[in-house]
Amino acid sequence: MERHHFEAELQGLRNQLLTMGGLVEERVHRAVHSLIHRGEEDARRVIASDNEINDLQMDIDNRCLKLLATQTPLAVDLRLITSAMKINADLERVGDQAVNIAESALVLIPQPPLKHLIDIPRMAMIAEKMIRDALDAFVKRDPELARDVLRRDDEVDELKDQVFRELLTYMMADPGTIQRALSLVLISRNLERIADHATNIAEDVIFIAEAKDVRHHAGVEDR
Amino acid sequence: MERHHFEAELQGLRNQLLTMGGLVEERVHRAVHSLIHRGEEDARRVIASDNEINDLQMDIDNRCLKLLATQTPLAVDLRLITSAMKINADLERVGDQAVNIAESALVLIPQPPLKHLIDIPRMAMIAEKMIRDALDAFVKRDPELARDVLRRDDEVDELKDQVFRELLTYMMADPGTIQRALSLVLISRNLERIADHATNIAEDVIFIAEAKDVRHHAGVEDR
Repeated sequence: MERHHFEAELQGLRNQLLTMGGLVEERVHRAVHSLIHRGEEDARRVIASDNEINDLQMDIDNRCLKLLATQTPLAVDLRLITSAMKINADLERVGDQAVNIAESALVLIPQPPLKHLIDIPRMAMIAEKMIRDALDAFVKRDPELARDVLRRDDEVDELKDQVFRELLTYMMADPGTIQRALSLVLISRNLERIADHATNIAEDVIFIAEAKDVRHHAGVEDR
Repeated sequence: MERHHFEAELQGLRNQLLTMGGLVEERVHRAVHSLIHRGEEDARRVIASDNEINDLQMDIDNRCLKLLATQTPLAVDLRLITSAMKINADLERVGDQAVNIAESALVLIPQPPLKHLIDIPRMAMIAEKMIRDALDAFVKRDPELARDVLRRDDEVDELKDQVFRELLTYMMADPGTIQRALSLVLISRNLERIADHATNIAEDVIFIAEAKDVRHHAGVEDR
């Protein structure tokens, strides 16, 4: 494969990952929207459309394998392609979390609202932005933006703990709230996992850009 | 790199993944053991030793990248090496789940036991065996054993639902049990995720063996 053809293939790979990212972000948004606005139809659409994401994941993986097979890539391209396979897997799992949220929403929607939701929409907003920025950092090869994503993970963790504490007081005060409160606790855990996937992607971006493994805190001072 | 040297490198990679698998399995076992036998020391050891797993993960990733860089691998080797990177990531996340379980155990140990634990140790036993068999299937290139791992995931899911329902009745009957019951619910979710990682590995094994993507149920009849 000639170099300029190879470059075009890499660009195609980046675009496909962006498409995948857009799809899963939209799913997360719709799932949380369905919870807040009690839209059963939206929740069902998130669950029904998971196949589309799974198909795209397989397409991307096959494209990566083809790229690795048809050319011995340079070190930086090698890191890019193998990282793309990991990012792809992270995005697919974000899609799975959106499905989990939609399933919990379907349990909650028919029941009276437990409380006005504030922290969960906030967690969702941050987590969605983290996914978007992590992918943006990937496409622009911007390790600084990726580091910024890593820093935001703490905020999500704090919100998760806050949600947990608040729902615990509801449950203690009135056992009739336990089932609904538990569903909300699980949703906050799903959102935390989405933020974790964004940090995985951000770490891969730094790895590609700087050929330095920042996972497990090595080289990240203020996480 | 000569072929026989390359084969030796692949064998080294397999062995290193087995070592990684053994390490994380031991962590899961110790974390659940600390919960059942109220061993604070064991729980702390699981948390403290997470670095070892993280270091090994980076070693394995670097070995894979080196293999991809120094030889244009044949199709089957390419699948093996890229799958090894994915399996590596799954194993590291199993280690993370062991840490989560150990942290919950540390919360529970100082408090009076809520109940005699039966389903959680059973879930742990199945999940540990799934990880072991998935890796065994990888080393022996045995897609049938991998399929057997896939089938066991349903059993873990059922146990998770059973744990949830049982703990819910405790919480409803006595709000004083809510905090402890919630910790146990979260532990059962951690074990479910460990089983999910085992199914990811099993799917990769089938992919390597048969060059057919069984993820997302394609080609797996009775999951």
